[in-house]
Amino acid sequence: MGLEAKAAARSPKAALITDAHVAALYKDKALASLREAGLAAEAIIVPPGESSKTLAQAGELFDTMLRAGIDRGSVVVALGGGVVSDLAGFVAATYMRGIPWIVVSTTLLGQVDASVGGKTAVDHPQCKNLIGAFHQPSAVLADVDTLATLPEEELRTGLAEVVKHAVIRDADLFALLEAQAARLLARDAEVLEDVVTRNVRIKAEVVMADERESGLRRILNYGHTIGHAIESLAMASSGPAGGLPMSHGCAVAIGMMVEAEIAVRRGLVGRAVAERQRRLLERFGLPVRPDPALDLKQCLAVMRHDKKAEAGHMRFVLPEAIGSVRDVNDVSDGEIGEALQAVAGA
Amino acid sequence: MGLEAKAAARSPKAALITDAHVAALYKDKALASLREAGLAAEAIIVPPGESSKTLAQAGELFDTMLRAGIDRGSVVVALGGGVVSDLAGFVAATYMRGIPWIVVSTTLLGQVDASVGGKTAVDHPQCKNLIGAFHQPSAVLADVDTLATLPEEELRTGLAEVVKHAVIRDADLFALLEAQAARLLARDAEVLEDVVTRNVRIKAEVVMADERESGLRRILNYGHTIGHAIESLAMASSGPAGGLPMSHGCAVAIGMMVEAEIAVRRGLVGRAVAERQRRLLERFGLPVRPDPALDLKQCLAVMRHDKKAEAGHMRFVLPEAIGSVRDVNDVSDGEIGEALQAVAGA
Repeated sequence: MGLEAKAAARSPKAALITDAHVAALYKDKALASLREAGLAAEAIIVPPGESSKTLAQAGELFDTMLRAGIDRGSVVVALGGGVVSDLAGFVAATYMRGIPWIVVSTTLLGQVDASVGGKTAVDHPQCKNLIGAFHQPSAVLADVDTLATLPEEELRTGLAEVVKHAVIRDADLFALLEAQAARLLARDAEVLEDVVTRNVRIKAEVVMADERESGLRRILNYGHTIGHAIESLAMASSGPAGGLPMSHGCAVAIGMMVEAEIAVRRGLVGRAVAERQRRLLERFGLPVRPDPALDLKQCLAVMRHDKKAEAGHMRFVLPEAIGSVRDVNDVSDGEIGEALQAVAGA
Repeated sequence: MGLEAKAAARSPKAALITDAHVAALYKDKALASLREAGLAAEAIIVPPGESSKTLAQAGELFDTMLRAGIDRGSVVVALGGGVVSDLAGFVAATYMRGIPWIVVSTTLLGQVDASVGGKTAVDHPQCKNLIGAFHQPSAVLADVDTLATLPEEELRTGLAEVVKHAVIRDADLFALLEAQAARLLARDAEVLEDVVTRNVRIKAEVVMADERESGLRRILNYGHTIGHAIESLAMASSGPAGGLPMSHGCAVAIGMMVEAEIAVRRGLVGRAVAERQRRLLERFGLPVRPDPALDLKQCLAVMRHDKKAEAGHMRFVLPEAIGSVRDVNDVSDGEIGEALQAVAGA
């Protein structure tokens, strides 16, 4: 990675931003590579987990970078998963109005999704990814060997986005996932490399065609309109008195099932497609039903608060076949409620 | 302004961000104009002054905007001077990864400088404008009538940037300023309108030719390399034990004198040009000499920390005539020290 960082930098300093888990595994190797390439690299370590994606944490990073003499030609190296790349990318986007950065992704989600496209953000307590910027990394590096040490839950989260990419854009990939599910779950390096490469290609094609998310890029939101709401509500009700927070991947898997159900009920797609999607998600150990106690009104309120809702219109990306989706902007609250109920009771 | 805001918006909500001083004078009029244009407008009022340009204040604005239901199609209206437009612009740049905004500028500095070019930022305690983004406003409105209520000190700050624009780009404007100084200081609306229009044109030309500040736009830094350092040191030493903080305009005026002196000593420009610049700045009540007690080492340290310093090289924009400057990247610490001393003792 040292050479890619060096190529992106216009001055000799580099800030390696990573979390404590990843630092324990890869920090020394990364620093050595950066220094070998001639960069004066310093590691900045944040606590692992979504709770580090805050404006306050970004503020601490600005302090540290300023003290370390990071200038506008320095490069930020984000080493880790989606949380690290979202946070470090936001900091790179706003430090001195934007300095170069590269991503070295160590999770499946990061490799197939978070690291491609230039979306960076931190969370607001009431809204994920509320505060952010578009800032393209100069390079995205993905070494599937790092996935060998990835916790099970994080592998699943990545697979949810992989299934999403297949549904929205690539029927061949979907068939490959069905055929190779066992080897994927066993983290077979050859299959992982094939899957990651195909996913990066899909994401990059969509993003390059529409960098600012005005048109085509919306198709990447499949499963996310409902998914984000489910994730936000689970986060809000978690803690001592409530249940567990839900991973992004699990929320997206449920979101895809509900959104596919809306499509089925509209006659946009046959039920067989929704069923095929359900079987693959289940094969990957992902949940496919919302909590029956989920409050529809709260869910709708969160969706309207969500950045995907413009002027109160509810916009969805719905499947019309495996490998193809359509942008729809007239989904009623009633339809959403019926689909949620149907999937919860299935 | 209502119509310009409406044209920028893609949903019916608007956030009018202003400070307490400006709110007392223009808030009701602005809200009425926005509502008349069909926007559901809400005013968000921040304390006046540079101390509001913080990440913490931006965080409070995100809270308020989220509560108010501002979505990604809503428009932010920045009503006020440079502090308000820097802060509101940064918030517009990063809320939901960027939403539309317009600037309604009520200070001379805002009208001729801060509101044009899409640079937005908040301050870090150790570095002005450290945290920011490039985010073009959809419209910039300047009504010179609002300058009638502008405090004397703020008029001067604006005039420093006006002189800068004339030196870097427009000898005719410089001559006009010399001829019309008295009417300008008396806030004659006709002269103000002429001066503001010419300045917006200069700034916009430079910025449009180079939006990301890689080349031509650097000429706008004339007076600012030294000026920012003087301003930062004055801010750091102000307070109960020290002196007063220094306005941006005063610091830039002194900065232009020191940078012109470097140019004179290099033989880039005749002393007569530096003298003409000094007389005009003095005519506008601006300081032209640094504090003789200014610590050169501290000053150099701040400049190196400053975002204009890349990889330790000291880069300056130096005049070669009234109306023309040159980008120079080999100015030594010795030259800076000699010029500072010469101007302080002049």
